[in-house]
Amino acid sequence: MSSSDIFIGETIGTAVLILLGGGVCAAATLKSSKARNAGWVAITFGWGFAVLTGAYISAPLSGAHLNPAVTLGLAIEGGTEWSDVPLYMGSQMLGAIIGAALVYVTYLGQFQAHLTDAEIVGSGKVDSSAPGPVLGVFSTGPEIRNTVQNMATEIIATAVLVLAILTQGLNDGGHGLGILGVLITSFVVVGIGLSLGGPTGYAINPARDLGPRITHALLPLPNKGGSDWGYAWIPVVGPLVGAALGAGLYKLAFV
Amino acid sequence: MSSSDIFIGETIGTAVLILLGGGVCAAATLKSSKARNAGWVAITFGWGFAVLTGAYISAPLSGAHLNPAVTLGLAIEGGTEWSDVPLYMGSQMLGAIIGAALVYVTYLGQFQAHLTDAEIVGSGKVDSSAPGPVLGVFSTGPEIRNTVQNMATEIIATAVLVLAILTQGLNDGGHGLGILGVLITSFVVVGIGLSLGGPTGYAINPARDLGPRITHALLPLPNKGGSDWGYAWIPVVGPLVGAALGAGLYKLAFV
Amino acid sequence: MSSSDIFIGETIGTAVLILLGGGVCAAATLKSSKARNAGWVAITFGWGFAVLTGAYISAPLSGAHLNPAVTLGLAIEGGTEWSDVPLYMGSQMLGAIIGAALVYVTYLGQFQAHLTDAEIVGSGKVDSSAPGPVLGVFSTGPEIRNTVQNMATEIIATAVLVLAILTQGLNDGGHGLGILGVLITSFVVVGIGLSLGGPTGYAINPARDLGPRITHALLPLPNKGGSDWGYAWIPVVGPLVGAALGAGLYKLAFV
Amino acid sequence: MSSSDIFIGETIGTAVLILLGGGVCAAATLKSSKARNAGWVAITFGWGFAVLTGAYISAPLSGAHLNPAVTLGLAIEGGTEWSDVPLYMGSQMLGAIIGAALVYVTYLGQFQAHLTDAEIVGSGKVDSSAPGPVLGVFSTGPEIRNTVQNMATEIIATAVLVLAILTQGLNDGGHGLGILGVLITSFVVVGIGLSLGGPTGYAINPARDLGPRITHALLPLPNKGGSDWGYAWIPVVGPLVGAALGAGLYKLAFV
Repeated sequence: MSSSDIFIGETIGTAVLILLGGGVCAAATLKSSKARNAGWVAITFGWGFAVLTGAYISAPLSGAHLNPAVTLGLAIEGGTEWSDVPLYMGSQMLGAIIGAALVYVTYLGQFQAHLTDAEIVGSGKVDSSAPGPVLGVFSTGPEIRNTVQNMATEIIATAVLVLAILTQGLNDGGHGLGILGVLITSFVVVGIGLSLGGPTGYAINPARDLGPRITHALLPLPNKGGSDWGYAWIPVVGPLVGAALGAGLYKLAFV
Repeated sequence: MSSSDIFIGETIGTAVLILLGGGVCAAATLKSSKARNAGWVAITFGWGFAVLTGAYISAPLSGAHLNPAVTLGLAIEGGTEWSDVPLYMGSQMLGAIIGAALVYVTYLGQFQAHLTDAEIVGSGKVDSSAPGPVLGVFSTGPEIRNTVQNMATEIIATAVLVLAILTQGLNDGGHGLGILGVLITSFVVVGIGLSLGGPTGYAINPARDLGPRITHALLPLPNKGGSDWGYAWIPVVGPLVGAALGAGLYKLAFV
Repeated sequence: MSSSDIFIGETIGTAVLILLGGGVCAAATLKSSKARNAGWVAITFGWGFAVLTGAYISAPLSGAHLNPAVTLGLAIEGGTEWSDVPLYMGSQMLGAIIGAALVYVTYLGQFQAHLTDAEIVGSGKVDSSAPGPVLGVFSTGPEIRNTVQNMATEIIATAVLVLAILTQGLNDGGHGLGILGVLITSFVVVGIGLSLGGPTGYAINPARDLGPRITHALLPLPNKGGSDWGYAWIPVVGPLVGAALGAGLYKLAFV
Repeated sequence: MSSSDIFIGETIGTAVLILLGGGVCAAATLKSSKARNAGWVAITFGWGFAVLTGAYISAPLSGAHLNPAVTLGLAIEGGTEWSDVPLYMGSQMLGAIIGAALVYVTYLGQFQAHLTDAEIVGSGKVDSSAPGPVLGVFSTGPEIRNTVQNMATEIIATAVLVLAILTQGLNDGGHGLGILGVLITSFVVVGIGLSLGGPTGYAINPARDLGPRITHALLPLPNKGGSDWGYAWIPVVGPLVGAALGAGLYKLAFV
């Protein structure tokens, strides 16, 4: 793949991933959304089909990594050149920032309605050092703040994801990321969300979390509150460690 | 494809699409329906499987566009002749009007029960200039009425749809709309609904919105109220603009 | 296919279909079930995966009709011999009766708990001429009892089903009921349930409704109430008429 | 397959199966989980995608049994050597114990929050001879405790599963466990859960139930209560009997 294919594919693909993934969080949580309170099944399938759509669009150009942890796993496994890794990761971050900005455009009125709601404003949550009331549309945060457990959860969940992606090559006879593999991976992501998303909201992707957090910090949203930078390193480091573990296990056990 | 194949395929396919898509809105919202209050997950999967069924039936005849925005996107891309575009769009509109009439037949008693409910009639909603109490079964309407945001939402959502449909040709090696591509497209539509449907109800298809709105205006339903013609141009123009954007991005970045 | 393959495949396949389909109705409605109140999404996906499982098991033997209306549609289309039709339909009825008896065995304690619940017994519903309180686990019944609308709903829903099954042959190049076709058909059935199931509970299959109704009439369940024989002809005749319509439309428009 | 492939594939695959399957039970039931009260649809799809992920990862190595009942069924059918059976079953048990321990790590804070909740502790449920308040995350238990019905339910549900897995070979022309077969099997498992899971919680897999029960007994969780050993034999014996029945029916009817 050429550098320009990687750049275009990963930027557009990750932008679509975050537009749809952030979108379902906005849809299910913001005031004046038709999908309000649609629940955890809606959120997990929404993220799964976000992966499906973003990966489907970008697969022919860049192989549809859309996730620095997956790129790391594929580099360890050997399917991706180490020299391409920075370009992959940079494009994914750029795409994630753009995707989160598109969520803001799509749900502009809903953000405004939500953030002027007296109950939310009056709850004391609008405080620039604490996670703001719409941060959950952009980035993950733990239900119980515990560095060791939060890290462990992200590591385990990402290791499962990377293991499933790497064994794909064995399942389809080495033909690479086929159209059916994309569908199965998206259901694997739904499954990880349903099963392992309870404690931290399953970042399992550094770009998915850090990119939108940057967007959140930059957006001109009154009462938006803080971006919770104290937690921001966990959904970056955890998935990278998990990907390394998953890829290591793969090399040890499967090849 | 012959003109008669296009006409038959698109009319029947779009009629099935709207019968099932309008059907799930009726099922989940009308009084005396077993599915009442089934929620947003039911509505989005219902529309997705409506696409699956309509596309599956019409694919062998007409290629399963079922959407003037998709037809426009394919014409810009080059896969569809510009001279066939009017026939496609006309057949889609005809099919949508028929499909909405079939929803009326299927849910006749439920419409009547709903529209004679004292609470709904007494709420002041039954007023011929405002959106009527069952219009949501037929056409979309915004939660927050804001022309710029509503247009932006429809443009963004349709651009994602068209991008996913155009890249399909790259994913399956140019074999056209295969059986698996239809399934994946239907899940993409579920995803767009879950993620981007919150503000406007995701028309993303001019025929899906305008056809049933015409049916709503013509149907002999007491207390049906207005057809909200003031909003009707947005789910027509927005998706067409979005499709042009998506197809332009495709030509720029992917070929 | 030999007569014995048709008999075995259709009997086992339809028994599995009704065991799982009736099972999800029991699961979502009876007292002391873990799935109680799981809702319409659970019921429609449950029936869809019941079709998937029953069809998957029986496809190699008998082609997985599992439905007299589908058998009729395939006979009209020409893919099934008219002389095989009685054997298909008889096996389907036998399988449906057996499947419903297996639901009874699986949910025995739940049926007993439900039927001795004072609130249900005291509600006046337990009357041998009216639909009994657990009849919905076995057979369909309308929300609004109106012969013309109920017939129309069953006819329309079955015509869509048969049209989707017949066009399958065009989509997969005439290879018959392939493994992917079974999956897509099962999602089509989920879609029909979500969209068109609201008024009558979507029998769309004479054996699915009549077989379990016979089982309901025979089972030794105290307080079970009536089997609603006055309605029983509609989910038999409606689907057969719908199948004939769907197959006629197919022959007119698609071949 | 070599012994080491079977051991590695089944241990890792079953660990992933139980991590995700136990995970969704934890997610939907424990305090301070984002998915709390996500409901039966979430639980059944979670288990289905747990099967998908575990099977997808282990299929290239060990054929993805992940279930002693499935191994027994395949041995009766002839596809698996009887001499490999103990290795399969032992690896599955080991994987299940590990997977359940990983659920404990992932949801540590949630377990602690749940078990110190005054309402739960004060309800008298924390009694070492009765099923403990978080046992449902690990193992199954009946809604109505009735040995005959509980056994019958597990036997019937497992027979359906094994029948669907054995006919897979006929559907894909003897190519073994293909990538699409894994997807369909996972939806069959969702279907069995939706339809037959109401009475006992559908173990349908001795390792899925006994392995996590052992983990539950060993874990240092204050107030965890009893592991309900009195019931433990049913989800072991029932699935094995069901698998034998399913495989016997397969040999009688399909080959």
